[in-house]
Amino acid sequence: MHLIELSHPNQLHGLSVGELEVIAKQIREKHLDVVSTSGGHLGPGLGVVELTLALYQTLDLDVDRVIWDVGHQAYPHKLITGRTHQFQTLRQKGGIAGYLKRSESRFDHFGAGHASTSISAALGMAMARDQRSENFKCVAIIGDGALTGGMALEAINHAGHLPKTRLLVILNDNDMSISPPVGALSTYLNRMRLSPPVQFLSGSAEEAVKHLPFMGGELPAELERIKESMRRLAVPKVGAVFEELGFTYMGPVNGHNIAEMMRTFQAAHRCEGPVLVHVATMKGKGYPYAEADQVGYHAQPAFDLASGKAYPSSKPKPPSYSKVFGQTLVKLCEQDTRVVGITAAMATGTGLDLLQKAVPGQYVDVGIAEQHAVTLAAGMACEGLKPVVAIYSTFLQRAYDQLIHDVGIQNLPVTFVMDRAGIVGADGPTHQGQYDISYMRAIPNFTIMAPKDEAELQRMLVTCLYHNGPSALRIPRGEGEGVPLAEEGWEPLTIGQGELITDGDDLLIVAYGAMVTPAILTGNLLRSYGIKAAVINARFLRPLDKGLILPMAKRIGRLVTMEEGSLPGGFGSAVVECLSDHDVSISTLRIGIPDILVNHASPKESKQSLGLTPEQMVERIAIRFQFNLDH
Amino acid sequence: MHLIELSHPNQLHGLSVGELEVIAKQIREKHLDVVSTSGGHLGPGLGVVELTLALYQTLDLDVDRVIWDVGHQAYPHKLITGRTHQFQTLRQKGGIAGYLKRSESRFDHFGAGHASTSISAALGMAMARDQRSENFKCVAIIGDGALTGGMALEAINHAGHLPKTRLLVILNDNDMSISPPVGALSTYLNRMRLSPPVQFLSGSAEEAVKHLPFMGGELPAELERIKESMRRLAVPKVGAVFEELGFTYMGPVNGHNIAEMMRTFQAAHRCEGPVLVHVATMKGKGYPYAEADQVGYHAQPAFDLASGKAYPSSKPKPPSYSKVFGQTLVKLCEQDTRVVGITAAMATGTGLDLLQKAVPGQYVDVGIAEQHAVTLAAGMACEGLKPVVAIYSTFLQRAYDQLIHDVGIQNLPVTFVMDRAGIVGADGPTHQGQYDISYMRAIPNFTIMAPKDEAELQRMLVTCLYHNGPSALRIPRGEGEGVPLAEEGWEPLTIGQGELITDGDDLLIVAYGAMVTPAILTGNLLRSYGIKAAVINARFLRPLDKGLILPMAKRIGRLVTMEEGSLPGGFGSAVVECLSDHDVSISTLRIGIPDILVNHASPKESKQSLGLTPEQMVERIAIRFQFNLDH
Repeated sequence: MHLIELSHPNQLHGLSVGELEVIAKQIREKHLDVVSTSGGHLGPGLGVVELTLALYQTLDLDVDRVIWDVGHQAYPHKLITGRTHQFQTLRQKGGIAGYLKRSESRFDHFGAGHASTSISAALGMAMARDQRSENFKCVAIIGDGALTGGMALEAINHAGHLPKTRLLVILNDNDMSISPPVGALSTYLNRMRLSPPVQFLSGSAEEAVKHLPFMGGELPAELERIKESMRRLAVPKVGAVFEELGFTYMGPVNGHNIAEMMRTFQAAHRCEGPVLVHVATMKGKGYPYAEADQVGYHAQPAFDLASGKAYPSSKPKPPSYSKVFGQTLVKLCEQDTRVVGITAAMATGTGLDLLQKAVPGQYVDVGIAEQHAVTLAAGMACEGLKPVVAIYSTFLQRAYDQLIHDVGIQNLPVTFVMDRAGIVGADGPTHQGQYDISYMRAIPNFTIMAPKDEAELQRMLVTCLYHNGPSALRIPRGEGEGVPLAEEGWEPLTIGQGELITDGDDLLIVAYGAMVTPAILTGNLLRSYGIKAAVINARFLRPLDKGLILPMAKRIGRLVTMEEGSLPGGFGSAVVECLSDHDVSISTLRIGIPDILVNHASPKESKQSLGLTPEQMVERIAIRFQFNLDH
Repeated sequence: MHLIELSHPNQLHGLSVGELEVIAKQIREKHLDVVSTSGGHLGPGLGVVELTLALYQTLDLDVDRVIWDVGHQAYPHKLITGRTHQFQTLRQKGGIAGYLKRSESRFDHFGAGHASTSISAALGMAMARDQRSENFKCVAIIGDGALTGGMALEAINHAGHLPKTRLLVILNDNDMSISPPVGALSTYLNRMRLSPPVQFLSGSAEEAVKHLPFMGGELPAELERIKESMRRLAVPKVGAVFEELGFTYMGPVNGHNIAEMMRTFQAAHRCEGPVLVHVATMKGKGYPYAEADQVGYHAQPAFDLASGKAYPSSKPKPPSYSKVFGQTLVKLCEQDTRVVGITAAMATGTGLDLLQKAVPGQYVDVGIAEQHAVTLAAGMACEGLKPVVAIYSTFLQRAYDQLIHDVGIQNLPVTFVMDRAGIVGADGPTHQGQYDISYMRAIPNFTIMAPKDEAELQRMLVTCLYHNGPSALRIPRGEGEGVPLAEEGWEPLTIGQGELITDGDDLLIVAYGAMVTPAILTGNLLRSYGIKAAVINARFLRPLDKGLILPMAKRIGRLVTMEEGSLPGGFGSAVVECLSDHDVSISTLRIGIPDILVNHASPKESKQSLGLTPEQMVERIAIRFQFNLDH
């Protein structure tokens, strides 16, 4: 059997371990081949090839439910569930998704993209199964990084309380999240990885205590007490945390030994109640470059398979917003010891890796724990520090209550840098940074802004830092506009003051953040048709620059808003609210992300499909305001 | 010394245990006296009187930081930090808050209201302290219920990883959250409560192993191995979970024995790194009725101290929205075994206690774990169940990402009943249900609605349940409108269809949910001034009934929206967006909760101060649209 003949994982049933190892090799080849061509997650999938095969040998995928946490490690799963032929379309428009989607395959039982959801979902399925007296297996596979996310721990706490609900949690312990994992749980797992598996000792140790030499005769009272204590305490240390929380713990097992895993999974399936199998895997397994650099090969753009190196880019690109943010924060930290950068397992993505290297004493990585990150920052702010929390727009959703309850209501000076705000491209719907404008806008006391370019980002960062209240700024994924950057001495902006870029009498465009440049291009195009558009860089979502916008809106009578975010409750919504509140009844057009899911595609393709290119916006404006583009 | 002479907790320093017990008695008396008069949280505070006194004996409150989780158990803290004289204003407008607020006292180091935030905040303060080389103590006091919230576990994981950061976590284990606690952690704590304290055995046990008779001579290999295992494994079971996670564990100690607690806290202060002291307390301690019924006396309105009974209400009140919801859900569960009610430790508050009693097999309480509750429901929905998740509007903020990522994006049929949506009254800013309209509105695939009365609530519940996608309905705190209720056979509403209540030519009022009745009253008042207002019950926020609203808006030319929610991104915002999208440029007025914090007061007082009474709204409308009210 060859991988390309596989359309159903049950076809692997009955294969020998040797035959499965051949399939494993084919999966790795395909995986490397496609990811090196199209880009995507490399290390996570390579680490679970044997785990996937061993597990599926013990399951009937026609009935059993498998929930992969995050989903970025599910490429082997995709390859053995009938998607080998389309796999080269990975993460491309219309192609195979980089995460899991229920709509993509009947074998994708639960979609994901964010971490730490799998145990909750699997438990929900298991409870539904029992409610309906059915009999399938429910399996969650979760990484050691994702396990530290609060909701995974909530789910462990609930599942451990249900001794009759059969549930298998596989802990894919590669001793990494995207970055090396943080936290006591990780240290604990590490200790276990280094211990011999002693989980079967419990019974025999108990037995042995009875036969110890001193157990028979008379004993001094003190020794009697120690004997009793030891009997009570002679519980294997390995897995104790999970055992105490109601799980049967098995492991650690070698995640690259198919036979060992199959035996363990079979034993786990025979247990009643919740079971945790601790599997020790190696991220990037089988590709030496990825084994050696597990952070670097977590996910990457296309690269040369032979050398492991990224292709040189065709032309030099401006630095990314994340990088400019990271560099600027390093300088600000060097200048002011009160400034602290906080990330939730996303040092590289947010640019905070630069701070980690340069000023480690003012850098904190809390692991996958966005809620804790936000309230930790609130606590620091109470004591006079100036915390800067850098979290992707999509992941900050996890800490929404903390934004309101701990930072907003208490009016504490915490700065949020929401990276990947707007269209993110190949990561698809779970990762689009499209909601932050809507969800931040109603939180009391927050000052909220977005820069038009990376130089303005620098000024906004100091604006936030030296503002005595909560503030947030959003930056897009990818490279900046390539504008010149000051090395230091960034001047804070006046809060609530927008920038008039061009004046004009026919139309007022008010753009926010990453849409300012497209707005200027749109204005230029309109001008070529004889339509004189004024363009405002709003800078601030909250407070909105009423003083600038309202008089111009009244004078011009036609207003367009532009944002890279969801339209319901978004930036344009804030502008039309402002018009309503000041009784300015004019014709308005809100351009942004409509109320739909934005699927994976390149950012350029996504923007095109949403009608966000300057050419498309010119056309939409012309239709709406009946401008004639014919001359 | 008498309680009323206390203006600073340090004044208690040096008092004997006997003198402290006298103060404890005075605190209980005052606590009972005020709460029985004004209503508030009773059981939580009574349980920690001795804990508070013992802890503060070991602290210098001029420098040390104390963070009470939730804050509803901090009445004794308030009483010994200079607020005895004002304490009778508890939870009343302008009076002492029912939770903690930084602005109320310099001794309130971190505000709260929601659960599970204290360890994060305390750790943030501790890290700031170390960053600045200061030397105060940071103490978080957290209940066993709140400890199961994911963010508390995230914080434990982080703190346990910092062996040099001094932090004291006091686990106030009363074996209760508002309801009896749920989960494996609670079972684990319970086991410990029943064990003798053995935390100091660890070192001596290790020593003792060396002196066991068989340790000297030759031993068979098997015994040698057992000896080694036992040495390795001879860790006290009590507290193992916390110890494994990097904390020094001490306890359980008797939470009503001041001397024992003082000794333990002193020992804890001498430790380096994070320490958890496990204190076993009794909720409601010292008031027999509260000791006997810990759920019933968690929090309550004014009651007769002698009998423990609530005062009979002056006139019969209609059933609350929560109760009607609970009763209706019971019937729906009885009719359809696929329907399941899910709560996060709020059975009584949401009306799900009725379901728990009537159909326990279709009732799930996950404990304080909103995130898990939502994704658990998503998992159930994948398997054909019809989960109904009942969570207060303010607490659903905790699960915002799960609403988007697990339910919305996957378009799963989960029903959310957001209780306490709108003004909540005496609980104040942390509990106002004012954000849900804004935060739900941009989530894809959701159908969102609010009933004008409890009969419409019943119809909306069946509408949600039999809609094949995510849906949410919001209901206010407190009693319904007193309308007749059908016993069964509730007819689903047509999704996206509003209701025209009155027609008129001068003004269009579009009201949402709890504001429909005030809108009708406003319309009636306006009519008495000769102004003919049309009134629409919007029913649906999403999709909005464009077909009904737009033609009337165009015809009438003046539109008012009314909602009990924050104005930024709210219901009125949705209406003005809709007008913008359809190029209807008319004069609009949005009435709702402005962009401010709403402090504790009675709901009536809050609405008055926000200008939401019909009389006030008539005036605001008249000013805005220049109606003449003089004739």
